[in-house]
Amino acid sequence: MTGAHEQHPFLELIRRRVSAEGFDPARELDERTVRELVADATLAPSSFNIQHWRFVAVRHAADKRRLQAASHGQRQVADAAVTLIVLGDTRGVDRLPEIVERAVAAGALPPGKAAAWVRLARELYADPRTAREEVLRSCSLAAMLLMLSAEARGLAAGALTGFDADRVRREFEIDERYVPVMLIAVGYPAGPGAPRQPRLAVDEVLAFDRGRVF
Amino acid sequence: MTGAHEQHPFLELIRRRVSAEGFDPARELDERTVRELVADATLAPSSFNIQHWRFVAVRHAADKRRLQAASHGQRQVADAAVTLIVLGDTRGVDRLPEIVERAVAAGALPPGKAAAWVRLARELYADPRTAREEVLRSCSLAAMLLMLSAEARGLAAGALTGFDADRVRREFEIDERYVPVMLIAVGYPAGPGAPRQPRLAVDEVLAFDRGRVF
Repeated sequence: MTGAHEQHPFLELIRRRVSAEGFDPARELDERTVRELVADATLAPSSFNIQHWRFVAVRHAADKRRLQAASHGQRQVADAAVTLIVLGDTRGVDRLPEIVERAVAAGALPPGKAAAWVRLARELYADPRTAREEVLRSCSLAAMLLMLSAEARGLAAGALTGFDADRVRREFEIDERYVPVMLIAVGYPAGPGAPRQPRLAVDEVLAFDRGRVF
Repeated sequence: MTGAHEQHPFLELIRRRVSAEGFDPARELDERTVRELVADATLAPSSFNIQHWRFVAVRHAADKRRLQAASHGQRQVADAAVTLIVLGDTRGVDRLPEIVERAVAAGALPPGKAAAWVRLARELYADPRTAREEVLRSCSLAAMLLMLSAEARGLAAGALTGFDADRVRREFEIDERYVPVMLIAVGYPAGPGAPRQPRLAVDEVLAFDRGRVF
């Protein structure tokens, strides 16, 4: 199995990807490309198909500078053509009745299953901590797809988690129901990327059958 | 730009991927494949290169049944050839001095930058909530890569977050410093996958320049 698939272009893609630090500030991204990146991100798996993820695309120079100021001055936020604020909707489950209705209409969900699905999800995410943690999970899954989609499209992307979430919310008029989970700077790379940081070996992070202190 | 890249096999990969529900329980995964999946997962971006992710591969029938019992009886946990418990090390930063030492030795990090990097990361992750939230983020990024790697290798994978974390920790002798973030069932697909759940349209999840109530 492995031999035949070892050459899948996806494996080459993830091996060459590094977090971008340098962007060509002269090259913009058109709105269509931003929409395609977001569409790809929404193909991530999603608990109950709630799709907690939301995105604000920051593209104008003055806005990017304000976002940079809320991100400890990290340059890539302003140099990138677009920096996406990845938001998680802590009240995402409120939209689930509509989502399952569409799924039933599309034949993707048996009608008899829909009501129980909504009920179970509502119970689970009534707890604010559970909702917040699921938001971090599902938005991060989507963020990974977005970064890979950028790489596949000849762009570069870099995730940042060092920012002042309250300030980002204030500056970009983001309702408090949304948690800013991550920033993703996307643009055309300027020169070669940063060197890849060496990773821990597989044996340092993987155990079989039982846990251990790694 | 977009036209030329629209055919990248990655885009085809993410469009065909669905969360697997049915696995062929008769087909096992060899240890080498599990190691390759984990190696691919560790290529995810990582804050300060801390690599909070750890993995326990559950492969024996009796163990998988115990894991299933801790996961509301969800069948795919036991039917999959291997179910991975994705763990996040809330004390991951403790390993950073060694990680940066290796990066300096590999020429991937300037020696002058290493000490400040460790100091800053320690400050940031001294707060347990920040550490826990970063663990959820970075393990989810790695989990997405792992699922895509499985798909690229002709396997199927499905993530589960509905499980009793304390029970999983107990049953699999997992130290309390590790947060069980997600389970990923991996194996050979049995028949066609579940239908893809329709996603919200891009306009329903994307705003330009300023936030809004989506």
